[in-house]
Amino acid sequence: MPFRLSHDEPDFEGRFGAFLDTARAADADVDEAAAGIIADVRARGLAAVLDLTRRFDRFGADENTLRISEAEIDAAIAGIGAPEREALELAAGRIRAYHTRQAPADALWTDEAGATLGWRWRPVESAGLYVPGGLASYPSSVLMNAIPARVAGVSRLVVAAPTPDGRANPLVLLAARLAGVDEIWRVGGAQAIAALAYGAGPIRPVDKITGPGNAWVAAAKRRVFGHVGIDMIAGPSEILVIADRDNDPDWVALDLLSQAEHDESAQAILVTDDPGFADAVAAAVERRLETLARRTIAGASWRAHGALIVARDLDHAVELANRVAPEHLEICAADAEGLAERIRHAGAIFLGAHTPEAIGDYVGGPNHVLPTARSARFSSGLSVLDFMKRTTLARMSPGALRAIGPAAEVLARAEGLEAHGLSVRSRLDAMNE
Amino acid sequence: MPFRLSHDEPDFEGRFGAFLDTARAADADVDEAAAGIIADVRARGLAAVLDLTRRFDRFGADENTLRISEAEIDAAIAGIGAPEREALELAAGRIRAYHTRQAPADALWTDEAGATLGWRWRPVESAGLYVPGGLASYPSSVLMNAIPARVAGVSRLVVAAPTPDGRANPLVLLAARLAGVDEIWRVGGAQAIAALAYGAGPIRPVDKITGPGNAWVAAAKRRVFGHVGIDMIAGPSEILVIADRDNDPDWVALDLLSQAEHDESAQAILVTDDPGFADAVAAAVERRLETLARRTIAGASWRAHGALIVARDLDHAVELANRVAPEHLEICAADAEGLAERIRHAGAIFLGAHTPEAIGDYVGGPNHVLPTARSARFSSGLSVLDFMKRTTLARMSPGALRAIGPAAEVLARAEGLEAHGLSVRSRLDAMNE
Repeated sequence: MPFRLSHDEPDFEGRFGAFLDTARAADADVDEAAAGIIADVRARGLAAVLDLTRRFDRFGADENTLRISEAEIDAAIAGIGAPEREALELAAGRIRAYHTRQAPADALWTDEAGATLGWRWRPVESAGLYVPGGLASYPSSVLMNAIPARVAGVSRLVVAAPTPDGRANPLVLLAARLAGVDEIWRVGGAQAIAALAYGAGPIRPVDKITGPGNAWVAAAKRRVFGHVGIDMIAGPSEILVIADRDNDPDWVALDLLSQAEHDESAQAILVTDDPGFADAVAAAVERRLETLARRTIAGASWRAHGALIVARDLDHAVELANRVAPEHLEICAADAEGLAERIRHAGAIFLGAHTPEAIGDYVGGPNHVLPTARSARFSSGLSVLDFMKRTTLARMSPGALRAIGPAAEVLARAEGLEAHGLSVRSRLDAMNE
Repeated sequence: MPFRLSHDEPDFEGRFGAFLDTARAADADVDEAAAGIIADVRARGLAAVLDLTRRFDRFGADENTLRISEAEIDAAIAGIGAPEREALELAAGRIRAYHTRQAPADALWTDEAGATLGWRWRPVESAGLYVPGGLASYPSSVLMNAIPARVAGVSRLVVAAPTPDGRANPLVLLAARLAGVDEIWRVGGAQAIAALAYGAGPIRPVDKITGPGNAWVAAAKRRVFGHVGIDMIAGPSEILVIADRDNDPDWVALDLLSQAEHDESAQAILVTDDPGFADAVAAAVERRLETLARRTIAGASWRAHGALIVARDLDHAVELANRVAPEHLEICAADAEGLAERIRHAGAIFLGAHTPEAIGDYVGGPNHVLPTARSARFSSGLSVLDFMKRTTLARMSPGALRAIGPAAEVLARAEGLEAHGLSVRSRLDAMNE
């Protein structure tokens, strides 16, 4: 049964707090195994990558077949039907339009002291995008990672994707082509992350690695962080729906199940101000669970991690949502915008009953790579900024150095850094000569 | 002797590449030790923090003395002289003015499909700033970390700083007060990071941790990353100076030594187009090393990691600088701005002969927390954005859902996510009824 709690029950606070603290990540501790794989790839390069690919993906690639050729891509995508192709093109166009607006502005100004200051954004030169194999091999994720990189101006964009038994997902290949990916390598797991970070034979290293992955991939990303940039460490994902009684319980049930069907450790939470509506949604979820293709996964997620919470009112619902800091937040109520205004922590907000979270997964435009497991408290979804970096600029006129240099000298002396102080003093003395 | 290389020597490329690949980080592998300390603090909370503080800092704090009281701060800063106080105030004002310009803009628009899209920035609620004890206890770093957090709107700003033998640095306390820090705790090392991430007795957990630290602090930050946000993993820092012959060799020598005096693993590199100028700078460095207070550290850094590189011309110098991706880049040449335009990777650029890097360490305005060890290829200096996060917004009108919903449905089906598709379909069907 999903967790159920109402504001008028005894110890609501304690029980809500305990619910929040329940860990959902059941990741195996594979940190040492990942470290071993990284060391192997650094030591043996391509040979290690080929060995591990044979072992984990049952695929005997060699130096020439490790990269998926343009001809292979052509052949694979030729069989894709028009509806799928058009849907991916529509999604790519909308994602590109949204992310193009994120391009940051440079700045340069001269202040009253005569100091010219500013900053300038430049793209990361090369980026590697990890695409999981198996169940979670999603073409939509390729678009969501690759398009912001291209909009940022990344010049070399690489995909690493395991191809279990040598089979690649044609829609993933099409998404990579639509997004302008330059190279696709048939390699997965920690060995893919190691190859992207340090290079391996024909796989040249990249500067930044993004994309979701299993526990090995996550552990490897944590390990290579610092040598290259990484996006975030993705945890189990969640949705929180705030809905009042003026909603269709079946729509809300399907939105909850959209999250639950991803993964047994996913979490779907309804917060409503009406106990009768909570009952109706619970019933609708059970009805849908009877026929849903992924009912085993969705049912396990719903029973283990699902929640129906009855808040005092919609303001209370907003407060509870802030404490959850959900990856996805739907607000289905008359004044959705007014309630959203007071949300401080959420990866993405979907406003109104006609904005199911699934729209955001595919065609809305905003990124679907979002902070999970309460990390919306301190991080943001993937964006163009993740593929750019800022250089600060400063030029002192002689007058500016005269005005603020002495303070730098005082602070350098206070910190015991004599050369710092002298580097300012030698210039000031020359000006006074 | 510092490394010396000229463009006209045989195998310039190979030798420059080998120089780039030379690792300078000699951090002990303290990952397991840090993990043990984090586990101890999570299990025993305050008791563990007090035990570790007694052991590592020789300071027997209890629950009441672990936090530095306002009265203690008042007493400590009363003895600070006017020049130091005024210099810190000038620095704080300039840093605040620069960072205030970084406040990001929200956006909201409606596109031709009828989808209202956008994003919104909100501050992280609480942030913890680590301030090292001992040699590297720098008041300027307190300003550089705390002011962007305050400008971002962080509501609770906490400092953790070891106080070896119970002694706190008065200038650090003054900087914390000027920057508006709310709490200062006498705790250092991995135990400080654990307490900030998970809480320990009176130390409530924070959402984001920033600030420099030794190998234990770095390992602990890497471990808690994901549960809380962190800034970057700082490595040994570096400066690269591009200077032509029309510069004072002594000024450039002092700028190189400003970096070298920080730390034996720091790196100072001159790239010039004139071999005679390289000789003159080398001689000036040696002269200054005779008298510099920190000549042991600066000399060790210069001999082990320093470099004098003679480029073909200033364009070649720019190309080499891009390959180094230095934390600090000074450009002392007539057309500094023109050369800077082609720099793709650098944490901060200092333009012209009157902008010694030391100005940027203290009073320039831009942040001095910058990407080290070539990570300017993929990351930026600390900024207001590090203390904010972005929530994306989406609202579909019924018409927008009709226009783009079917594509989402197609993609959901292609990815085998039936509930995703049904969440769109159920709404479309209701509209058609």
